Amino acid sequence: MAETQEQTGKDWKSISIARQNEIRNAIPKSHCLSPTVIEGLQDSRNLISIPETCGILSQRELEITSTPSITKLLADIRNRVYTAVEVTMAFCKRASIAHQLTNCLTEVLYDSALAQAQELDKHLLVTGEPVGLLHGLPISVKDHISIAGTRATSGLVSMADNISDRDAYIIEILRKAGAVFYVKTTNPLCMLAMETHSNLFGRTVSPYNTNLSPGGSSGGEAALISLRGSLLGVGTDIGGSLRAPAAFSNIYTLKASTGRIPVAGMEWWLHPGMETVQCVIGPMAIGVDGLELFHEAALASSPWLVEPSLVNKPWDKRVIVNGTILKPLRIGLMLNDGVVTPHPPILRSLKETAKALEEAGHIVIPWVPVDHKGMSELTTATFFQDNAQPARHLIKKSGEELTPLVKFALDGLQSKPLTVTESWDLTYRRNQYRLSYAKLWNESQIDAIICPAAPTVSPLHDTTKSWGYTLVFNLLDYSTAVFPAGKVLDIDGADALPEGVDLDATYPKNSLEELNQVYSKLWFDKDQNGKVLGPERYKYAPIGLQLVARRYEEEKVLGILRTVVEARRNGGLEAY
Amino acid sequence: MAETQEQTGKDWKSISIARQNEIRNAIPKSHCLSPTVIEGLQDSRNLISIPETCGILSQRELEITSTPSITKLLADIRNRVYTAVEVTMAFCKRASIAHQLTNCLTEVLYDSALAQAQELDKHLLVTGEPVGLLHGLPISVKDHISIAGTRATSGLVSMADNISDRDAYIIEILRKAGAVFYVKTTNPLCMLAMETHSNLFGRTVSPYNTNLSPGGSSGGEAALISLRGSLLGVGTDIGGSLRAPAAFSNIYTLKASTGRIPVAGMEWWLHPGMETVQCVIGPMAIGVDGLELFHEAALASSPWLVEPSLVNKPWDKRVIVNGTILKPLRIGLMLNDGVVTPHPPILRSLKETAKALEEAGHIVIPWVPVDHKGMSELTTATFFQDNAQPARHLIKKSGEELTPLVKFALDGLQSKPLTVTESWDLTYRRNQYRLSYAKLWNESQIDAIICPAAPTVSPLHDTTKSWGYTLVFNLLDYSTAVFPAGKVLDIDGADALPEGVDLDATYPKNSLEELNQVYSKLWFDKDQNGKVLGPERYKYAPIGLQLVARRYEEEKVLGILRTVVEARRNGGLEAY
Repeated sequence: MAETQEQTGKDWKSISIARQNEIRNAIPKSHCLSPTVIEGLQDSRNLISIPETCGILSQRELEITSTPSITKLLADIRNRVYTAVEVTMAFCKRASIAHQLTNCLTEVLYDSALAQAQELDKHLLVTGEPVGLLHGLPISVKDHISIAGTRATSGLVSMADNISDRDAYIIEILRKAGAVFYVKTTNPLCMLAMETHSNLFGRTVSPYNTNLSPGGSSGGEAALISLRGSLLGVGTDIGGSLRAPAAFSNIYTLKASTGRIPVAGMEWWLHPGMETVQCVIGPMAIGVDGLELFHEAALASSPWLVEPSLVNKPWDKRVIVNGTILKPLRIGLMLNDGVVTPHPPILRSLKETAKALEEAGHIVIPWVPVDHKGMSELTTATFFQDNAQPARHLIKKSGEELTPLVKFALDGLQSKPLTVTESWDLTYRRNQYRLSYAKLWNESQIDAIICPAAPTVSPLHDTTKSWGYTLVFNLLDYSTAVFPAGKVLDIDGADALPEGVDLDATYPKNSLEELNQVYSKLWFDKDQNGKVLGPERYKYAPIGLQLVARRYEEEKVLGILRTVVEARRNGGLEAY
Repeated sequence: MAETQEQTGKDWKSISIARQNEIRNAIPKSHCLSPTVIEGLQDSRNLISIPETCGILSQRELEITSTPSITKLLADIRNRVYTAVEVTMAFCKRASIAHQLTNCLTEVLYDSALAQAQELDKHLLVTGEPVGLLHGLPISVKDHISIAGTRATSGLVSMADNISDRDAYIIEILRKAGAVFYVKTTNPLCMLAMETHSNLFGRTVSPYNTNLSPGGSSGGEAALISLRGSLLGVGTDIGGSLRAPAAFSNIYTLKASTGRIPVAGMEWWLHPGMETVQCVIGPMAIGVDGLELFHEAALASSPWLVEPSLVNKPWDKRVIVNGTILKPLRIGLMLNDGVVTPHPPILRSLKETAKALEEAGHIVIPWVPVDHKGMSELTTATFFQDNAQPARHLIKKSGEELTPLVKFALDGLQSKPLTVTESWDLTYRRNQYRLSYAKLWNESQIDAIICPAAPTVSPLHDTTKSWGYTLVFNLLDYSTAVFPAGKVLDIDGADALPEGVDLDATYPKNSLEELNQVYSKLWFDKDQNGKVLGPERYKYAPIGLQLVARRYEEEKVLGILRTVVEARRNGGLEAY
């Protein structure tokens, strides 16, 4: 540690403080919350409406950032209702506000973004044509995805000044399609947590309840988008890092199968030859259309010609529009993975959603999870086949201390790297799970599964120790979306569980007893008056659910997602 | 060794002799060559016309087995010109003849095949409909692909009696499409050679010249199909095992990219979790239509729903029919991989083919190979990451001795298995090669490459030590076909190389000097009169060339293949 300090001339704490100050100072004065507003924040955990009440955004900027859909905003830019410059400015301002409320930004790129937007306006004026599908849309990007000239740190102090010399391939593609890059967003130390906390950037909090986490590792995106400091962001997922934060933050995401979306240009610690389970890049957005637009734009240029790890499989819009909604869907409903029982609001929301689907004429059958515990453990084992040596090295380099959840992830790993044969054994076991899950799926003849995205809603800080609900679908490499499905209500705290939920059945004896009990206590702990604490602890927290289709069924899962959203709406269920 | 003999009660030689006798004895007396014919064989190396002259096949059976195309034969069965039973009987007879000439069979399944054919005839009679695309077509299958109730041995004495309890998935699919399984065919010891020789089955020879090999590891298929003992067979390829034998045997093949054709149900020694470079199953056939029919039938049932390692990408016939032939193709011509220079007849055939393509209006540009040596070495390294322990174990189990080419492959490997990190390094290097090859391809804007399939035509036995021309396209996972392109001619022995070929340029100094010299001598050795020996040594040998498109461009490569075949025909070039 001493040696490293000598090398850099700075200790890790001062590097972190300096970086956090730099980010804060990059925010223009005119975007700063007034002392009065700041004072008001002390009394409230829920900051979700601050952008609209703080007085920083003009009426027109509020209109732009509150657009009902990304598709509409893009049309408004194309039709010159708004210029790209004013749209960009609106989102810069709103992102600045979001950062002050949640600590979600790592790079402030407003000058270059406005210059980019100006070019786009000029192009539209001169040619009458947009440059591409995303003409003028500000898109936010997770820290560890490279944008030329900006830092990609993986939340590591030792990488605090790691400036990318070129765009990640997906950024290059989105830029050509007309996206404007104006901010980068936080991720946790080494991406090794499902919350967003690092020494370098500090902690990102949920704007719905600052006692809670927006999730991770794409948690900066989640916090930013839930405040509409962005409508569409780019994150990554190898174990749930798109889906957990989306579920915790009232937004949509789609984790595609490996090999659909370009991944060249991510900076992080995993060996680039590790392919047993792979990290994917994906969108997080305020609506389903954002997920579609992202995939359509990403695949329009046939990126498999440049990045040969991708599958040559064009985006097939027909599936989304017509493919799946002409016949009744057959949906598997999984209330519980048999490992950690989800909290009551999630169970309630699942059952409400199932009912709405049935009312819309679809068929819902129970989905009985088989060995999700084994799959979940296997997935984690694949991440750490080399005992996380590169991550340990990068952490050690600055001498920074482990954050609690990273300590949890790294402690107790096997002590030496696997042999190649041991590694192949993991891959073989992965393949056996994929075969047996496909068999179950074929026997049940389902189109998709609806299930929890996590056993909890937005978690209390440093409590996220169960990744199983998302992990298994990385192992299976399934196309998996997350969508908003209500919020925590007072009724979720009644002593009785929701109707039809049997505590013994839902907290099975053969599960990871200890972890299950930890989660159970988080909700069912009681105050002095015997009242269940859950609803108060998790007050204002959104509920997000997971929708799972098979491998390479990205179009299909979005088609079904539209149907589910519509069924919930027709059933009188609010997104939040 | 003594221990193993005690266990089995038999030594490996007697097991081999017994098995070879069993196969021979399973051939009905009426399919056996007469003593006169057998006597006549002594004087000739070239046996290709024996099936037509030996008197075993009736006129009608000759007509059936000499059909101009598989498509026509299938139509003839559907239209009841022939019954499935008589078609099956014709191919059983011709396969029997092929075995007596080349030693190509490992299983003789005539009874069950005729029973299967009878069922198909009944079905057609009763329903008026074929059961599927391949109704009544006899299909031959390489030894190590499982067919329920038959042996899958990988050419290993220790697996001589390894009877499969179920069909490989591809066999199940082809069976449902109406294929009839009547023989299995030889492969070399452990599939570890590009010729076909094992202690268990002995040596398979080329019917074009018995001094030469039909290639390997799918060499039994190649010998059988070139004698029209089969029109369509199923083989495998991880380093050239479909393509080398097809090139050496005047037939067509397509090695698809990993993940298009089901692979579940192969029996062999490679660890099933080894995925750096993977073995694929593919067709070998008398014509392009056979390759198409195989792929169409294989994908018609959406096999990715059952075998999730496959890509969800239906067979797209439009590409073959319309996609690529409407505009001039841009073809890269690679005469030499910069490692081992191909023999003169191959260079001649490449130049003739290029000329024919240009005459047909297509554009041919030089393709300069970049580091094919490195790619080739890397591919081999991936096969032996665990020092081939499972193969060594299976060989040791029976005490059998190594065949010369397997000894060549296994000697001098690194002495211990890799660590997982070393293995990931190989994968990373593979990915870098894939990226840089894609870059070259994009810069040249080519549709395909035409190049040698090997540096030699059908090789003299035990001389095949260079796999590079095919290996690299396994590393790149490209869609790669092989097609017949003439035969060795006397003019190939002129002291001068073919016009335009520069010896210094084609035998570059920076290549694998030693291997290159070995190959050079094989052709350019001279007799006492100073005459180049090549044309006599390789007399009657067919020439096969390789046509390479990118990953997942199976439909495209077949479309281009049709164009190439047509251009050659229009240019007056014979297939053989």
